[in-house]
Amino acid sequence: MSRVSRAKERLVVVGGDAAGMSAASQARRLKGPDELEIVAFERGHFSSYSACGIPYWVGGDVSDRDELIARTPEEHRARGIDLRMRTEVTELDVAGGRVRSRDLESGAEAWTSYDKLVIATGARPIRPPLPGIDAPGVHGVQTLDDGQALLDTLSRTAGRRAVVIGAGYIGVEMAEALLNRGYEVTVVNRGPKPMSTLDPDMGRLVHQAMEGLGITMVNDAEVTKILTGEDGRVRAVATEDAEYPADVVVLGIGVRPETTLAEAAGLPLGGHKGLLTDLAMRVRGHENIWAGGDCVEVLDLVSGRERHIALGTHANKHGQVIGANVGGGYATFPGVVGTAVSKVCDLEIARTGLREKDARRAGLQFETVTIESTSRAGYYPGADLMTVKMLAERRTGRLLGVQIVGQEGAGKRVDIAAVALTACMTVEQMTALDLGYAPPFSPVWDPILVAARKAVGAVRAGGS
Amino acid sequence: MSRVSRAKERLVVVGGDAAGMSAASQARRLKGPDELEIVAFERGHFSSYSACGIPYWVGGDVSDRDELIARTPEEHRARGIDLRMRTEVTELDVAGGRVRSRDLESGAEAWTSYDKLVIATGARPIRPPLPGIDAPGVHGVQTLDDGQALLDTLSRTAGRRAVVIGAGYIGVEMAEALLNRGYEVTVVNRGPKPMSTLDPDMGRLVHQAMEGLGITMVNDAEVTKILTGEDGRVRAVATEDAEYPADVVVLGIGVRPETTLAEAAGLPLGGHKGLLTDLAMRVRGHENIWAGGDCVEVLDLVSGRERHIALGTHANKHGQVIGANVGGGYATFPGVVGTAVSKVCDLEIARTGLREKDARRAGLQFETVTIESTSRAGYYPGADLMTVKMLAERRTGRLLGVQIVGQEGAGKRVDIAAVALTACMTVEQMTALDLGYAPPFSPVWDPILVAARKAVGAVRAGGS
Repeated sequence: MSRVSRAKERLVVVGGDAAGMSAASQARRLKGPDELEIVAFERGHFSSYSACGIPYWVGGDVSDRDELIARTPEEHRARGIDLRMRTEVTELDVAGGRVRSRDLESGAEAWTSYDKLVIATGARPIRPPLPGIDAPGVHGVQTLDDGQALLDTLSRTAGRRAVVIGAGYIGVEMAEALLNRGYEVTVVNRGPKPMSTLDPDMGRLVHQAMEGLGITMVNDAEVTKILTGEDGRVRAVATEDAEYPADVVVLGIGVRPETTLAEAAGLPLGGHKGLLTDLAMRVRGHENIWAGGDCVEVLDLVSGRERHIALGTHANKHGQVIGANVGGGYATFPGVVGTAVSKVCDLEIARTGLREKDARRAGLQFETVTIESTSRAGYYPGADLMTVKMLAERRTGRLLGVQIVGQEGAGKRVDIAAVALTACMTVEQMTALDLGYAPPFSPVWDPILVAARKAVGAVRAGGS
Repeated sequence: MSRVSRAKERLVVVGGDAAGMSAASQARRLKGPDELEIVAFERGHFSSYSACGIPYWVGGDVSDRDELIARTPEEHRARGIDLRMRTEVTELDVAGGRVRSRDLESGAEAWTSYDKLVIATGARPIRPPLPGIDAPGVHGVQTLDDGQALLDTLSRTAGRRAVVIGAGYIGVEMAEALLNRGYEVTVVNRGPKPMSTLDPDMGRLVHQAMEGLGITMVNDAEVTKILTGEDGRVRAVATEDAEYPADVVVLGIGVRPETTLAEAAGLPLGGHKGLLTDLAMRVRGHENIWAGGDCVEVLDLVSGRERHIALGTHANKHGQVIGANVGGGYATFPGVVGTAVSKVCDLEIARTGLREKDARRAGLQFETVTIESTSRAGYYPGADLMTVKMLAERRTGRLLGVQIVGQEGAGKRVDIAAVALTACMTVEQMTALDLGYAPPFSPVWDPILVAARKAVGAVRAGGS
């Protein structure tokens, strides 16, 4: 295709999930098909779906896979986006301004030139090279295809013993899902406590609550192999010390940025192997290439460092920002404060900002306080205990982080701290926050205020 | 009593509820009985109780009155506070540094001198001088005594028709309480829509939801008299146009600062007849007098004006600040942003910042947007619709206010906006907020973010 034949610009998007398709959709809103041609490639079977919803589909809270799909390929095409499904981009030719793709059905290859390129290749699950890891009955839960495969296994498996490897967000959410499906669940976890995104003292509360739910928690345990039976299917998970019988195994070990193509193309990667961008989500040093979603690193506004966080809400924001900029508007993604919320049955788990080890690594000195309070007025029905841990910088009293473990109404309170972190508030300023109060919603001192007051005392006592 | 005989300072506190006793307790924490004598007067039967909890006690969610009492007189006394119950302060002699009190049981009067004085006289319910307003069966719900009297009436009354006069927080909460007690409830409301703390378009949603709950809503109706039967008890509530049969009537019209004593003593009052203080909660122009709780006016940080807000959470903060300053420490109450949250059965209602008319009154020009979203991911069980209205200043895009009406998980989201208001964020800054996301807690774009994005568009479209 010669440049002369194209009167309009062409935007090529690599990856048809949240970041890529949000970018495409937003660009299309700003520029019609007369001005901008949009071609998007997706190697999988689905576009714009909620991977975060997979545990709830597997667990039965969501009955139909299609509910997790925000927009189908047909819907995207109806909006003037040439979305090519089951088509994998195999090479980025940055110098030539083109990408090579392969149709996974036919095997046919083609080059497509671009004026502007969006890289939204997502993340790939960590699959340690363990013996037996590819055995039938061992499942990741990264994509809708993965979820369907796991559900197929569950429906075919007579045994009711499930082992989840990993105790981060995906691990604990899958433990709940399998519990809901009637399985005996064992979680095998490399770290000393589940939820290593929390400090260990808060992880201990999660550990206790999960055991209380009937989940067998195995910490400090490195999986050495997956054992298979005579039929070749998984039969157990082995660590150095023990074997855990398993009719099904779910991998919830985490993900890494999928940047193989970007690395081969010489694009800049950070310490977590994610693409590095500027504040407009433009790949550093490349005027016409943007990247967003699970394949990029983001600035942590509290520590001042780059992090890799695979989370749909960030991917959607990135896509929005990229689409605005590609479409001739202007938007930026200033960074994150590291907010996350999750649950295991009735237990809500949330965090924002820095853990103790993050703060130390960033060179910060700090005070920590932990308080127990209730999510509602103590006398109101359903008032459940919740624990809040707060970190404040030594001397300045600047809020550095909050971790919450509790029951209904506990988790989303982390948003208060997320906004306070964004605004660089001190814990003393936080004590005066005018938060919503009524007995069904909060004690007269919201738990976040109780923690802030205690943190003020700790900062004062800490002196200079 | 001569000054010579007192080696230590004496703090006198007028009012034994949230603000007064928080101040006393905090002062006691900082100064022991050797340094500071604390005498507190309370005319009622109870100390340190949650008036906000009364609707839930009346409605049956809270079974025992004593659950609403945070600290009994005996507990205060055990902490070295000389709390004199059923003792009304009848005069403040500011020049003489003393207060006159009367023991309501014996009628005995006495003067008590002070070095430092805390005024925490609270608020009194508005009781319009209507014919019949003092008839048996007509109840306020301001104090625990009021609540007990209402419960006594409910247990003695065979009829099941209740009329609530007023449709603000107390009115709608009492409507729920009476509904829970099995009453046919009619709410007679002077304004065009219930919840005049919201804009009328949001009040309309509350109106519809309350009607959906089976509550008869009468708006634009001024009560002209309370009609009584031959037995002298209430039998109906009359407006200009109609009569509403009633076996019990609850007044939920609102409150005014109780500043009769302060006014007689020549202390400075504001336009709402509340005491005026500095940021340390010291009464303006009086070095040794502090005031807090429902009897003071507070600075609205968004409009820059004084307001009167009777709310336990503010009273507690005031008390804490006063106690710190009285006790030789230092603390301030910077002001409020006007956050409030309430519910009627499953309907959650919240607001913070300015309504349209508040913004206009403050001289602000603004854009408004209203969005509908869900409290959880749309596909997650229990995802309910919620409506968010947002006001942003013209040109600057500064957040001015948020109003929320919705179901479970809607109300406390107002805290996000409350912190953003405190930090003077723009709606554009808010679009990048790193709020907690997981399907059971939020859609991938939190409803507050959806509103902020739309507000950005409105501010841009509004031009200069």
